[in-house]
Amino acid sequence: MSVERTLHHFPLDPASRQVRLALGEKRLPFTEVSVRYWERPKELTRLNPSGMIPVLVETPSEGPPLVLCETRAILDYLEEAYPEPALLGREAADRAEARRLLTWFDRKFEFEASGFILHEKIEKRLLRLGAPELANLRQGRDGLRNHLQMMEDLLQDRDWLAGRRLSLADFAASAHLSVIDYFGDVPWRDFPTAKTWYMKLKSRPCFRPLLADRWPGLAPAGHYDDLDF
Amino acid sequence: MSVERTLHHFPLDPASRQVRLALGEKRLPFTEVSVRYWERPKELTRLNPSGMIPVLVETPSEGPPLVLCETRAILDYLEEAYPEPALLGREAADRAEARRLLTWFDRKFEFEASGFILHEKIEKRLLRLGAPELANLRQGRDGLRNHLQMMEDLLQDRDWLAGRRLSLADFAASAHLSVIDYFGDVPWRDFPTAKTWYMKLKSRPCFRPLLADRWPGLAPAGHYDDLDF
Repeated sequence: MSVERTLHHFPLDPASRQVRLALGEKRLPFTEVSVRYWERPKELTRLNPSGMIPVLVETPSEGPPLVLCETRAILDYLEEAYPEPALLGREAADRAEARRLLTWFDRKFEFEASGFILHEKIEKRLLRLGAPELANLRQGRDGLRNHLQMMEDLLQDRDWLAGRRLSLADFAASAHLSVIDYFGDVPWRDFPTAKTWYMKLKSRPCFRPLLADRWPGLAPAGHYDDLDF
Repeated sequence: MSVERTLHHFPLDPASRQVRLALGEKRLPFTEVSVRYWERPKELTRLNPSGMIPVLVETPSEGPPLVLCETRAILDYLEEAYPEPALLGREAADRAEARRLLTWFDRKFEFEASGFILHEKIEKRLLRLGAPELANLRQGRDGLRNHLQMMEDLLQDRDWLAGRRLSLADFAASAHLSVIDYFGDVPWRDFPTAKTWYMKLKSRPCFRPLLADRWPGLAPAGHYDDLDF
């Protein structure tokens, strides 16, 4: 049975990027609809009452479409419906570690680092809220350094963030970091192990579409799509 | 193989309550450790570097303990390790709906309603931050009414929040609401369908331990443990 797959997303949204990476790694083709979510379009609210992206719609050749709302629901569905390659590990301990880190990046990292930076660099531009506040940017950048140090420590003994295998934890972390990197705000030089990890991710085919993203009026940093940065 | 199970939690924490409800519904016995998480105890940070509760530790009679950090990781593990009774539904659409609502309550409900109310009513007491700010409480209560209306609408056509069967979505919603209800701040009278739904949940055996919770210096509202409120 053939399936038509549509992802409603925003190119510079870390949550959307996690889903694009998982779809890419599983080689699942999809059509993209870029959504100006901050304008609260009715089509989006009709699909997802929370008004949040990403939303993935799978329409089989027969039967009703399956509407998947919110990152974690989409990622969990993709693991269940398309288990190869596995992106959560097979052992309970591996899965628990990957899921611990998913929450880490989607809550703690966003709360302490990316929330500050992306509000100042993206949301204020899109919503015309004025110039970035330096105090907020500084707080976000300080938080970012703490998180990069945490990653640096984890990656001393591990090939990937959750252990020996690539997992959704790597996609969550790199999705968040890649948007900050678009603005050139990741101090890679001071975190060499994290930088090597990011180079490995950047060179995977699933990452290529993210590196091609451009948003009008927001130019990326020079090294953004450079695999050897 | 026998397993020793310990839950590190705080009685009035909505995230911890979700896990207690799932453990209760699956009839999985556990030892409780009540954690004063706001004091950042080292034992907790050693188990979970984010310093967040809940943390579930399962120690088998042989082999290393399994440490499960963060609500979603624990709930996902319990579904995988103890699939009966199923708390996520079996069909992809049911699972997607339950998971959509999990994110709704853990992010949107917390951001728009419970975050305001519980910060003013619990955190300020525990952290000795002074009296509640009425403007914050009002904003939280307004948000709460919007969310109760959303539930009221959903429950017009459904027995449970995600559909025909009890699911983790009901536990997420009732865990959040039950803490607000401890303080008597849920306007049940104006939302009769949601009230009936909450009565059904309250009368389940898994809910009893929550209704017995008391925290020194914070007395519950008179109807808190009343099954016919």
